Amino acid sequence: MLYISNKDLEKIVVLDDIMDCIEKAFEIYKSKNFQMPDRMHVDRKEGTILYMPCFTETVSGTKIVSTFPDNINNGISSIQGTMILNKSKTGEPIAMMDGAMITAYRTGAVGGVGVRHTTRENCTSVGLVGTGVQGFYQVLYACQARAIKHVYIFDLSRKRADQFKERLLLKLDGVQIHIVDNTHDLVKASDIIITATPSESPVLPDDKELLKGKHVIAIGSYKLAMRELPQSLYEVLDDLYIDTEFAAEESGDIIVPVREGWFNGERIKVFGQVFSELKKPGSETRTTLFKSVGMSLFDLLVAEVIYNKAVEKGLGQKLGE
Amino acid sequence: MLYISNKDLEKIVVLDDIMDCIEKAFEIYKSKNFQMPDRMHVDRKEGTILYMPCFTETVSGTKIVSTFPDNINNGISSIQGTMILNKSKTGEPIAMMDGAMITAYRTGAVGGVGVRHTTRENCTSVGLVGTGVQGFYQVLYACQARAIKHVYIFDLSRKRADQFKERLLLKLDGVQIHIVDNTHDLVKASDIIITATPSESPVLPDDKELLKGKHVIAIGSYKLAMRELPQSLYEVLDDLYIDTEFAAEESGDIIVPVREGWFNGERIKVFGQVFSELKKPGSETRTTLFKSVGMSLFDLLVAEVIYNKAVEKGLGQKLGE
Repeated sequence: MLYISNKDLEKIVVLDDIMDCIEKAFEIYKSKNFQMPDRMHVDRKEGTILYMPCFTETVSGTKIVSTFPDNINNGISSIQGTMILNKSKTGEPIAMMDGAMITAYRTGAVGGVGVRHTTRENCTSVGLVGTGVQGFYQVLYACQARAIKHVYIFDLSRKRADQFKERLLLKLDGVQIHIVDNTHDLVKASDIIITATPSESPVLPDDKELLKGKHVIAIGSYKLAMRELPQSLYEVLDDLYIDTEFAAEESGDIIVPVREGWFNGERIKVFGQVFSELKKPGSETRTTLFKSVGMSLFDLLVAEVIYNKAVEKGLGQKLGE
Repeated sequence: MLYISNKDLEKIVVLDDIMDCIEKAFEIYKSKNFQMPDRMHVDRKEGTILYMPCFTETVSGTKIVSTFPDNINNGISSIQGTMILNKSKTGEPIAMMDGAMITAYRTGAVGGVGVRHTTRENCTSVGLVGTGVQGFYQVLYACQARAIKHVYIFDLSRKRADQFKERLLLKLDGVQIHIVDNTHDLVKASDIIITATPSESPVLPDDKELLKGKHVIAIGSYKLAMRELPQSLYEVLDDLYIDTEFAAEESGDIIVPVREGWFNGERIKVFGQVFSELKKPGSETRTTLFKSVGMSLFDLLVAEVIYNKAVEKGLGQKLGE
């Protein structure tokens, strides 16, 4: 069994490869050649723990990931996790890695695939609301998918935004990073807007004119009570993509707009279903939303590709019998 | 995070300590001061995968364990698993160990606690039906709980029985090990009879006179379709203990006898409930059955005690960031 640390992951992960891997996952999702049991939730007073198993022909695996919001007050990441990878045929465990990092890499890559296929090709600016771990990787992948020159960031805490900017500067070359004071300025300045917050009320201005022509990538809301996006966005949307059917059952950003009649549910496109028919984006101005809630198939395929690369490169720590 | 290999486990595990730990688990079970979600099953064509989470005040953890019967034909253990231990307050993973070994140690210890409290104190012989990994540890713990002089073993495969005897000899001092040709001879010769098979029909003779006065520890059946014990056993039983309430809902060895009227369900004692009131067994001859199906609380407490000892002794492999 191989333990792959976060330092090893850094050496292994190539953003384009992970986005390609997510595209492969969308193809498998469409082919139905996998088994993905309903994720299991456990509620504790500290937060939620999710168990996300998935099985393909070659590998099976489980991500266990907890979200304990108060951790931040103690300087500990709110998301903690473990990803276990097994051989499908025998059940033997073959690798372990940090489930929080796998979540960050794969969620970033899902957003990046959204950027690749739902935003116009000449986008040069990204705005990010919410400067957590997820937001960080969303920006990295967005900058990989498009020739981004400017990144605008907003967070309720200025201190967090400053620290975030410092970390981002270490990773992005030739990109200017601006901290903005409000989301109005952020939306105005950005071609692509990424929301990555646990908010229960909209974090973008409820302003049609402002939102028209923007590309939104929303990854925060994964429960009915969670919502990041305002009503007007849905009223100006040309296309609404969801990464999986579950988004329409789980996220307040899809359930509420359909229920309230802001957007016709029949117009929603499931990404895995339409993926092979999508035209390469041109420079046409459309208003789009790509909403992701994720699924364990993403984690499994990303973990598999990382494991295979670790073996190829001789990375990882062998665990004794 | 600490990885504790099976070699480390060997150095850490003291059978009496693990049995004490199981007794502590029975006390916590009674106090209800824990959270144990329903275990999640996934059925694959190769077998079953179980996800078993549990939470106490100090630690939380998850055992993932698969049972793929055909593995044996490829020289691979049918039971494969991973045990992850986390801090309860933050969700941070603190240790990983082999879930199959934890299962073996804790299931053996549960059987051993059954022997400690439900068999007469002057038992000197144990008979084992089923020479898998579970059976191995059942015998070790039984020999620890009573001054056993003779162990009788039966398996459908003589080759497996021979190999089992060799392995057992390395672990047991001053005990004679006999391979028997049939379970009639095994029951006749043994004070304590342990059944550890995946059988769907009784593995012991349906013979009241033979079974009277015996102490049965049954650990094989965990589904309705699985049964190890014959009707006559229930008709001569003085006491029927189950380790947890789940046994009455899950095991064919409890469900069928109650449904068929072989044993009055109201006479069944849940071990955790009666544990504190049990008298120390004397030399009185009674006919007893202790039926275990296990629960994740056992795994969690055993993993916690092993982790604490590993830290104390400086054992285990530190996993890099």
